[in-house]
Amino acid sequence: MTYRAPVAEILLSMIHEAGMDPERKPSIYAELGDGFAEATLKEAAKYAESVLAPLNSVGDREGAKLDSGRVTVPPGFANAYRKWAAGGWNAISGPQDYGGAGLPVLLNTACIEIWSAANVSFSLCPLLTFAAIEAMESHASKALKELYLAKLISGAWTGTMNLTEPQAGSDLGGLKMRAERQGDGSYKLFGSKIFITYGEHDMAENIIHFVLARLPDAPKGTRGISLFLVPKMVVNDGGNLGKRNDVFCASLEHKLGIHAAPTCTMVYGDHGGAMGFLVGEENKGLACMFAMMNNARLNVGVQGVAIAERAFQQALGYAGERRQGRAPGERGEGMSPIIRHPDVMRMLLTMKSLTSAARAICFATAASIDRSRRAQDDAEHGAAFERASLLTPVAKAFSTDIANEVASLGVQVHGGMGYIEETGAAQYLRDARIAAIYEGTNGIQAIDLVQRKLGLSQGETMRREIASMREVTRALRENAENFGEMESHLSDAVDSLERATLFMQEAGAARPEEALAGAAPYLRLFAVALGGTLLAKGALAARRLSTAGNNDPLLPAKIACARFFAENIAAGAGGLAREVMLGGGSVLAGSSALER
Amino acid sequence: MTYRAPVAEILLSMIHEAGMDPERKPSIYAELGDGFAEATLKEAAKYAESVLAPLNSVGDREGAKLDSGRVTVPPGFANAYRKWAAGGWNAISGPQDYGGAGLPVLLNTACIEIWSAANVSFSLCPLLTFAAIEAMESHASKALKELYLAKLISGAWTGTMNLTEPQAGSDLGGLKMRAERQGDGSYKLFGSKIFITYGEHDMAENIIHFVLARLPDAPKGTRGISLFLVPKMVVNDGGNLGKRNDVFCASLEHKLGIHAAPTCTMVYGDHGGAMGFLVGEENKGLACMFAMMNNARLNVGVQGVAIAERAFQQALGYAGERRQGRAPGERGEGMSPIIRHPDVMRMLLTMKSLTSAARAICFATAASIDRSRRAQDDAEHGAAFERASLLTPVAKAFSTDIANEVASLGVQVHGGMGYIEETGAAQYLRDARIAAIYEGTNGIQAIDLVQRKLGLSQGETMRREIASMREVTRALRENAENFGEMESHLSDAVDSLERATLFMQEAGAARPEEALAGAAPYLRLFAVALGGTLLAKGALAARRLSTAGNNDPLLPAKIACARFFAENIAAGAGGLAREVMLGGGSVLAGSSALER
Repeated sequence: MTYRAPVAEILLSMIHEAGMDPERKPSIYAELGDGFAEATLKEAAKYAESVLAPLNSVGDREGAKLDSGRVTVPPGFANAYRKWAAGGWNAISGPQDYGGAGLPVLLNTACIEIWSAANVSFSLCPLLTFAAIEAMESHASKALKELYLAKLISGAWTGTMNLTEPQAGSDLGGLKMRAERQGDGSYKLFGSKIFITYGEHDMAENIIHFVLARLPDAPKGTRGISLFLVPKMVVNDGGNLGKRNDVFCASLEHKLGIHAAPTCTMVYGDHGGAMGFLVGEENKGLACMFAMMNNARLNVGVQGVAIAERAFQQALGYAGERRQGRAPGERGEGMSPIIRHPDVMRMLLTMKSLTSAARAICFATAASIDRSRRAQDDAEHGAAFERASLLTPVAKAFSTDIANEVASLGVQVHGGMGYIEETGAAQYLRDARIAAIYEGTNGIQAIDLVQRKLGLSQGETMRREIASMREVTRALRENAENFGEMESHLSDAVDSLERATLFMQEAGAARPEEALAGAAPYLRLFAVALGGTLLAKGALAARRLSTAGNNDPLLPAKIACARFFAENIAAGAGGLAREVMLGGGSVLAGSSALER
Repeated sequence: MTYRAPVAEILLSMIHEAGMDPERKPSIYAELGDGFAEATLKEAAKYAESVLAPLNSVGDREGAKLDSGRVTVPPGFANAYRKWAAGGWNAISGPQDYGGAGLPVLLNTACIEIWSAANVSFSLCPLLTFAAIEAMESHASKALKELYLAKLISGAWTGTMNLTEPQAGSDLGGLKMRAERQGDGSYKLFGSKIFITYGEHDMAENIIHFVLARLPDAPKGTRGISLFLVPKMVVNDGGNLGKRNDVFCASLEHKLGIHAAPTCTMVYGDHGGAMGFLVGEENKGLACMFAMMNNARLNVGVQGVAIAERAFQQALGYAGERRQGRAPGERGEGMSPIIRHPDVMRMLLTMKSLTSAARAICFATAASIDRSRRAQDDAEHGAAFERASLLTPVAKAFSTDIANEVASLGVQVHGGMGYIEETGAAQYLRDARIAAIYEGTNGIQAIDLVQRKLGLSQGETMRREIASMREVTRALRENAENFGEMESHLSDAVDSLERATLFMQEAGAARPEEALAGAAPYLRLFAVALGGTLLAKGALAARRLSTAGNNDPLLPAKIACARFFAENIAAGAGGLAREVMLGGGSVLAGSSALER
């Protein structure tokens, strides 16, 4: 099944939902004007569709392989990666001081959707490099940056995140990896890490590992963790590659999906110690790690959007061709394409509207990051930075939850054929399943939202978010024609979110267990209200453009999709609010049902 | 991961939710009294836990294999099957005239849950035999019964259902398989069938295929379909096996899950014609097929319950052992088992309550079948038969939908480990995914419910169902203590169902497309109201028993589980009703969003 990057739809979302406005003066997006954003996305689409997408099923079938310490990626991957990096795609939003193009995060986010939809296993490699770049930018010394950053930005070298150990998954406090000072400013690292994506591979000449470890005199728990840069090949002062460092891949995991992306157990220091360098300050590794993680969390959300989009495209294509039964009201001989059956339409619209809402949320998050980076003053920076912080867990968890739902519906639309691996629909389901788990499980995202993000600026950040949702419902009231019950359902959803937020803020202090028990449905409710209002914003813009004479069929499609979301997905908001407010008690009362 | 059949919970559900009352005089369940049901289930549990469950992951890894027409099942399966049949398990509910034990369907349904939880790929083989027995009982001639039925009932031979062809999936009208009269009462069959579960294997000495085909002079469409019995080995008049019949397995599918169950393409008549015998009348094959399918649909629903139960058990076990972070309110050193974290508790309670509700619905359906078979008079038979018809699509679709949801949550509870195949959680997700598709996709079930079942007895069957839900909410009002908001949420759910039902009955006639577009959320709403009230019925009984001095910890667990379902799952009923009543319009208005 081919993939077509939905460039026009992506652009509409960037402009009308996320607020990309290069023609306004002044605009933080000035450099994306004059068709630059569109031209860039079209180029990305070309590469993704012609090179990356065809490798997706090969990668699934062949998988990454380990042979005496050497990991090889599936046929075609290494070549595709080198061309991709040579094309400058790795450098889009990297800092200009080190060879990056310095373009907005929003543009890179849209590109990441395209790479991930074409081939999610492939896209994971640069995603980890991006996270490493982020950590280096904010925390590494100038000397380290000089040696490593340009190579990571160009994609000549790739990056990894080494957090997890068998006993330290979501809770990093218990990690045991050791780092010893060498007196010359370098360190030696000893220990092992699991679940290291692209920890070893043959796509680039060097791999730069970012590793959490403890110094011998470090305090217990998360306050005693430091971040180290450990290159696979030692880099000499001149920047040339020296000897092989003491870090090796000991095994690969046998996973449900993303078979082409090697998931490695990495062993450090079995032959005298792996040479490493401190990033940031000693014992302040967690802050550096969060810089990597925040970026990675948004991008994992985008992966969710991407897999959902591709699953939707394949199901839509199949439903247009497969004929079974006679749809109601159909005339003439023969069977109808199943897309004419209302139940199949419902599945496809559910897939499409969930995907579109998740995309809108991810793009809005990316735009907030851009605004915080390019802000004119502290107040603007602070507000945008906090909005990005607030939205990141929502973008990550909602997009990856719906990726599972959408990929599962994609299998369902195919009927029996969906269960046959050669069809390809099942691969999306298998590939999508990890995204709700890695970079912090979705449960952790919900807890982050409720415990750390709702209270930002004493709740003002969240109040502002709700106020901007209400701006949309107000605009809908003034433009209600052809929008069905969109306004009333979205107003209900925002009311529900506000009620649940007040409950959470009150419970968070008084009854933290109850707040934690309701965190997951609260995050879903937030996403439903936010996604619904962002889609409605897009629909209002589409209406304005149509009225002004633009007859692009995407415009009525945007309106139909927003309406479907409001009347079918947002219709459940009241139930989610009840789950948040009452369900916490029943979770805690339910512990007796979990005894055996 | 070991599986422990939840015998005590199953019994509570059979008695208090499905109405198994052997001690009442008279009772249709008299033979299950004096501990017979419990003893039988404990024996089933012993076999399932010790023999079938350990083969589950072997079966997944090794899969069924085809070598020049011969299909071999994974190591251990053939032996396990023969012992299982020798133990009499295949014959539980088969008719006594042909060697069956003639026991209630409810008891066999409970056993099927146990076999399927232990090893769903294994259980598929007898499930198809049961369907074949059902079709033969109601439609085959005495002569055919004499030759075949006892062997199918004992399990010496197994049965298959041959419906699907590449162009005829959900819509059987287009099927092309040919049957030619031979003048001696037999037929010759030509053509091929796909997706034939256990179409060929090495577990039994003969395989009896039930095949839909067309006679040369048959009318077009579904009115020209006949059902034929085609043995793999021809059976001589004396009942001995004769020559190999002209039916062969041409290939096996490469599937997402249920790897141990061979899914065959079967070719009939490539060497002169496959000898077959008519079951029922010519061109009346569809009615016979529905006899097979109805039985199979309930049993596929039970598979959903089974996989969900097993996924829950594994997640519960892991959550009790895996330690990460510190749960709120926890004292002492070290990390807490993740089961103490409220978000993990919510996932586990969601898994458990969905599974319990689906079980209650499946058992209630099985009990209605028993009541219809053992009714004293026509009115009782009619009402019970129609209730079984009404509930069958709900049992099938809801149970298999929640199986996907529960298995996915099971992966999530495991975090990163859930994505590693060796953990086993991912196998449940892969195995479960087919159940929402085969024996009629869940979309087809929803359409069946709305178009054929709601109108039974001019809507009286459905009205009776709602009235019996209201009996439960009335009883809850009189016994509200410790039940939280159970009553109000369930009353809302039943009100929502009633509103949506009136809408459906009205729309079904006037705007059939809208009714079809709302069919899937309508079925879910039905299941939520029914499952919630059945669990509440169980909770009321648990309360009575506790009050009477029974201190079995299962009793408070049942109450907690019912409360969780009402406050968290049933809380969404209002949203589902809105989807049914408004969403139909937005589905139809949404077609423009599906153009590309």
